[in-house]
Amino acid sequence: MSVFTPVTAEALSDWLRRYAVGRLAHVQGISAGVQNSNFFVTTTLGRYVLTLFETIPRAELPFYLHLMAHLARHGLPVPAPIADQDNEYLGTLSGKPAVLVMRLTGQADLPATPARCERVGAMLAGLHLAGLSYGRRQDNPRGAAWRSATAAQVRPFLPGDEQALLDAELAFQVRVPTDALPQGVIHADLFRDNVLWDGEHIGGVIDFYFAGCDALLFDVAVTVNDWCALPGGALDEARCRALLGAYHAERPFTDEERAAWPAMLRAAALRFWLSRAADFHLPRAGEMVLVKDPDEYRDILRQRTRNVPPLVAGSP
Amino acid sequence: MSVFTPVTAEALSDWLRRYAVGRLAHVQGISAGVQNSNFFVTTTLGRYVLTLFETIPRAELPFYLHLMAHLARHGLPVPAPIADQDNEYLGTLSGKPAVLVMRLTGQADLPATPARCERVGAMLAGLHLAGLSYGRRQDNPRGAAWRSATAAQVRPFLPGDEQALLDAELAFQVRVPTDALPQGVIHADLFRDNVLWDGEHIGGVIDFYFAGCDALLFDVAVTVNDWCALPGGALDEARCRALLGAYHAERPFTDEERAAWPAMLRAAALRFWLSRAADFHLPRAGEMVLVKDPDEYRDILRQRTRNVPPLVAGSP
Repeated sequence: MSVFTPVTAEALSDWLRRYAVGRLAHVQGISAGVQNSNFFVTTTLGRYVLTLFETIPRAELPFYLHLMAHLARHGLPVPAPIADQDNEYLGTLSGKPAVLVMRLTGQADLPATPARCERVGAMLAGLHLAGLSYGRRQDNPRGAAWRSATAAQVRPFLPGDEQALLDAELAFQVRVPTDALPQGVIHADLFRDNVLWDGEHIGGVIDFYFAGCDALLFDVAVTVNDWCALPGGALDEARCRALLGAYHAERPFTDEERAAWPAMLRAAALRFWLSRAADFHLPRAGEMVLVKDPDEYRDILRQRTRNVPPLVAGSP
Repeated sequence: MSVFTPVTAEALSDWLRRYAVGRLAHVQGISAGVQNSNFFVTTTLGRYVLTLFETIPRAELPFYLHLMAHLARHGLPVPAPIADQDNEYLGTLSGKPAVLVMRLTGQADLPATPARCERVGAMLAGLHLAGLSYGRRQDNPRGAAWRSATAAQVRPFLPGDEQALLDAELAFQVRVPTDALPQGVIHADLFRDNVLWDGEHIGGVIDFYFAGCDALLFDVAVTVNDWCALPGGALDEARCRALLGAYHAERPFTDEERAAWPAMLRAAALRFWLSRAADFHLPRAGEMVLVKDPDEYRDILRQRTRNVPPLVAGSP
């Protein structure tokens, strides 16, 4: 989205006095993102990103900010939030909850080659392993409860065949034994636009504001559905093998996860079909959300109800 | 120094399993530093530096590691230590206390232009301001008590005129009212070889293992003595003005600091003359310390006993 809430250089300069990051040199709005106002902030001491939260309730923000701080402390390239003179991350600017984070460098949205998929799989496993020692808990905000509620809202807008697909999928998903799967903190939105590349290395993983606690395999499925899908939605086997093999080398999949893999791919496809359909059919007043095509994820869901490659073909 | 303690790739690979940084890709010893063994460590997820501590007692290390973590949390480019699966920074490898830190990029030892001195002054003030909210305390390991003890050890090795200089300086320093000066956490070794430049920006400030609590102005004096000295030891006024002006803009100097400035420049010169003289005359068995010329800091001390420019010429 574009910047919703304007911030003047004067107000920002004044606000930055609460931090030890030097003096404001430059500020520029960022025309990307879906639920916050973001700005590149350059000071005499460094480069940062300022985020004003437009929709997430203030009480839910510490989970995300301390998660990013925790993952950065564990050596992963995520936007570490900056503490102010009171050692706090969350402030208030222009009347909105606000945070300053380290600016990461790199290029997003690069083509999903097998080599990049391998690095993404390893990084996702690193995020999951580091998350195991994170102490705060907050449910996946787009988990099973949200899917049921959102399905009821968008169903009336769908044509008959899509209603049938939705009904069948919801009936299928309630029978999936997700409690048997390893749980943890998931990024839940590790799409290509949220990975910054520094050459062939990952220089940054951004946008943790859909993170929450859920089955780790759901996160793997979200990631595979974006990084390994061919046009039309079918999975590319070479990319799947690269991503899943690198993940498995860091955190080996369990038998329960192997069994649940096709169902998780469907659950992950359903989640993005529903959110895109909701953004399309039920736009919220005043929001300038970039509406993405719901049909892409309808087609991915249909593909996943057919055969999918097993989890890490060839591994024990 | 060179690497003292060897680390095999096998032992390191095994040790890294305690972290969420991926798999070891490459390790290489670093032939720099004065009291630790350092290695560049590249993994599938990132680039780090491994440090094995050869001389600092284990009980003193948490002060340094948590300080670096604190400063990084406050947005400053310092080597943030990496937490393991137990959320701890300090581990053990090859029988030595060991820590993994983020690898910073940039070039050290660049010429001290006025423009760079300005950035160094602002950065030093940022370090001091961020340090105000750091909760741990440890004395400056090269403070007044260390200076007295070391002076007694090296004095017998000095020629008569240097003994007279030393005696006079020690007698002078005991009368300086340092308690009246603002205290805090100081880097205490912000020499040109400890600042990494990313173009004209500071990409990293390294080597915090002389840090401690002392007069903030002592740190300013250490920094000015290195960054602003001409050959022979006299101060370059343009560089002093740039460094001190940028510092003052972030943390204004007090009247007590203005009065103590010449004495602090002398105390800072004395500290490095003494440590270099001790390394030269009293080398410790088994240490491969790079011995730096003590005469450089003897000459700087002599220069500082003459006139020095006032603290921030022209400012109120």
